[in-house]
Amino acid sequence: MNYSIIRYILCRVLEFQALFLALPCGAALIYQEEEGWAYGAVLAGCFVIGALGKMKKPKSNVFYAREGFVTVSLSWIVLSLTGALPLFLSGEFPSYTDALFETISGLTTTGASILGDVEALSKCNLFWRSFTHWIGGMGVLVLILAVLPLAGGYNMHLMRAESPGPTVGKLVPRVKNTARNLYKMYVFLTIVQIVLLLITGMSLFESMTLSFGTAGTGGFGVLNDSIGSYPVISQAIITIFMILFGINFNVYYLLWTKKPWQALKHEEMRYYLGIILAAVLLITINIQEGFHSILGAFHHAAFQVASIITTTGYSTADFNQWPEFSKVILVLLMFMGACAGSTGGGIKVSRIVIMLKLVKNELSYLIHPKRVRQIHFENHVVNKDVLRSISVFFIAYAFIYGISVLLISLDGLGFTTNFTAVAATLNNIGPGLDQVGPTANFAVYSQPAKYVLMFDMLAGRLELFPILLLLAPSTWKRR
Amino acid sequence: MNYSIIRYILCRVLEFQALFLALPCGAALIYQEEEGWAYGAVLAGCFVIGALGKMKKPKSNVFYAREGFVTVSLSWIVLSLTGALPLFLSGEFPSYTDALFETISGLTTTGASILGDVEALSKCNLFWRSFTHWIGGMGVLVLILAVLPLAGGYNMHLMRAESPGPTVGKLVPRVKNTARNLYKMYVFLTIVQIVLLLITGMSLFESMTLSFGTAGTGGFGVLNDSIGSYPVISQAIITIFMILFGINFNVYYLLWTKKPWQALKHEEMRYYLGIILAAVLLITINIQEGFHSILGAFHHAAFQVASIITTTGYSTADFNQWPEFSKVILVLLMFMGACAGSTGGGIKVSRIVIMLKLVKNELSYLIHPKRVRQIHFENHVVNKDVLRSISVFFIAYAFIYGISVLLISLDGLGFTTNFTAVAATLNNIGPGLDQVGPTANFAVYSQPAKYVLMFDMLAGRLELFPILLLLAPSTWKRR
Repeated sequence: MNYSIIRYILCRVLEFQALFLALPCGAALIYQEEEGWAYGAVLAGCFVIGALGKMKKPKSNVFYAREGFVTVSLSWIVLSLTGALPLFLSGEFPSYTDALFETISGLTTTGASILGDVEALSKCNLFWRSFTHWIGGMGVLVLILAVLPLAGGYNMHLMRAESPGPTVGKLVPRVKNTARNLYKMYVFLTIVQIVLLLITGMSLFESMTLSFGTAGTGGFGVLNDSIGSYPVISQAIITIFMILFGINFNVYYLLWTKKPWQALKHEEMRYYLGIILAAVLLITINIQEGFHSILGAFHHAAFQVASIITTTGYSTADFNQWPEFSKVILVLLMFMGACAGSTGGGIKVSRIVIMLKLVKNELSYLIHPKRVRQIHFENHVVNKDVLRSISVFFIAYAFIYGISVLLISLDGLGFTTNFTAVAATLNNIGPGLDQVGPTANFAVYSQPAKYVLMFDMLAGRLELFPILLLLAPSTWKRR
Repeated sequence: MNYSIIRYILCRVLEFQALFLALPCGAALIYQEEEGWAYGAVLAGCFVIGALGKMKKPKSNVFYAREGFVTVSLSWIVLSLTGALPLFLSGEFPSYTDALFETISGLTTTGASILGDVEALSKCNLFWRSFTHWIGGMGVLVLILAVLPLAGGYNMHLMRAESPGPTVGKLVPRVKNTARNLYKMYVFLTIVQIVLLLITGMSLFESMTLSFGTAGTGGFGVLNDSIGSYPVISQAIITIFMILFGINFNVYYLLWTKKPWQALKHEEMRYYLGIILAAVLLITINIQEGFHSILGAFHHAAFQVASIITTTGYSTADFNQWPEFSKVILVLLMFMGACAGSTGGGIKVSRIVIMLKLVKNELSYLIHPKRVRQIHFENHVVNKDVLRSISVFFIAYAFIYGISVLLISLDGLGFTTNFTAVAATLNNIGPGLDQVGPTANFAVYSQPAKYVLMFDMLAGRLELFPILLLLAPSTWKRR
């Protein structure tokens, strides 16, 4: 393991954290909030440590997959630990654990909160919470790759470890340019949403925070009822943008490079939109009795489906009160998640589709053992390494799932609560059902259980293996 | 597809069904119960149709994997449909659907009942219910292979389609002798248990029915509180025999052929016993407050762990009232299941262990992409086809699981009930939690939901693929 280069990159990450913290600092200045000192102090600390630490250049540029995974995992942990400090120092969180839970929930774009009364928070804290979604959505290492002149072969390893999906979608041959293009589209879409929300009459503060939460598929709101009290038109805009941010960014790149027909043929996107349509229709029919008009039912069904499949986690209605069938659809969508190469979490539509094709192939193999069939996705043959890695991902996912439910069950809460709490954190969604439903929060859990859920959020965002590798002793051996 | 040979074998299956039905007929004679006429009538019907149908010899002996899977699936469906008739004709079941649910539950060794008051049933019905467990435990095709002079290459295909586990454990080179040896050991162990239960003072009727339920890892009892009101010593004997019937029968074959050291080294058995030990200790500590002595807690913990991991489903205590942590352990054991090559259901310990090894291998692959490592199990390298089939099994399992929970959620029962109802049926256990807990039953579900659960029971017992193949159109094409 090349420790010196990891140290070097972590120091750059700290510098970026200082940069990020400048925004809530600015918010505190504008709203003249005292809590701003905490952001200023942590900003200064991160900057000084980062700047000093990176002065000593790394001894060697050796950088393999192993270093990539470890760097990404540690970067996220460093961002979480430092990002939680101002929340804690502001005195608005009961403990550092709670502040850390909130920060990890923000960065991993989960949006699960331990707060009952969000409206009591100062503006700068609200701004920071939402901004962590935006940072975490596209990824901080991707940002660093986009703007820093990092040379050498390690770009790809960092990109791979941080980007969601079974394969890394390089838009263009150079990783640096891919990262830049991703961020350009990300910024563009975010600005469009902010402007549209402003037009509906929302304040700049709310437009920005809610757009950050949508773009990163995060889900922290600034009001206690999440998105419930905004006008229908604002809710509709958020619905559409949630769906847009759940689409594989390759599609936008194809549109950007004027290949609309190729974009329309994107297999994962077509499945994703088809699933959304089917789920919205089924839920609309199922819940319509509880609403005045079928249009109202459709509106809330669409919002909730978009929110859950993209793993955002905003809510306009208390879906915990919906019929069991609708709830189970939402739970299944929690596991499915959005497209690979989007800012959404979960298992990802492409993995689900490829897994279904695997089952179909196995059945045909049983009937005709001698006919070898390959699996096609997005017009390409899926290679064996990817197939194996998808299967193993799913297996690891299930094991982490089971162990997490077991550990948090020690708190004695009900099965539905525990089961959906893990679903909501491992898939980076936010709300679950019952005691962690959309009108409830994660304060019901003990501190140890919160650490289990924090682990799940990080493992979910980084797609398991980078975090699991941190726990494997052989990762830490020097060559 | 060679339809004529399938027709021929199904007729032989009907003849065997007539043979099986002779036992409850005998019970009805002994206890002078009127319900016996139903058994006599169905027996006669099965025999006549079977004998007539098999008179026309099959046109061709062509028999491939496809024919094997279809034959086994259809055999189980035929056994279920005919086996449900006497229960329905006896008038002791509300509908044919309920009688069918009970029969499938029996044959698949699930033990989930739609009856609240089991004690109201006639003895011959009770006997038949329990006897179906015994038939289904080791498998009816395995029995036919053991006793009939079926020549040709299709033995292996039938054996493979009916035997649980990732690979087929042939004890000896010839399938016929393997099947015979399996049944010899099965009969021997069953008789030992009957004798031991008789010694504890149980009646012959109860000793036999409960031993059938234990041997097949079924779980139908003859009293309303399952095993709760029997003496502690009887419960302890049942605990031990449940664990014994969950062990891979290869172990007994090794003992039988005087290779005790090899038997002790059996990897799957060691994991299985280790998991039982760990689960019993954790639950004992967790539930001890509710019991007078730690020994009492240990006794009930051991019984319940043995009952659930072997997927038997007997109960001595209402574990639905136990602390959440213990309940989650039991739910996890539901999925794990017993050893391959035993009469138990679930995913199987060997699959779980191999899947964990797959995850470990993937982590090491990520660190050292060039080091190729193979997966070892039972001192052999696991070949790639088996690894793929285990992964795909798990994926298919998860999809069937999700779809089943969604479909039965239309009844409007709670999430825990639906989630554990599918766990209890797909893994062939019996009781779940909440409204399908050990003191409740499956009558709470509507008829359509019961058909979903019947599908799950059959799919679980035959390990998914044979039943899934029935649904694939390409299975039915003529060559």
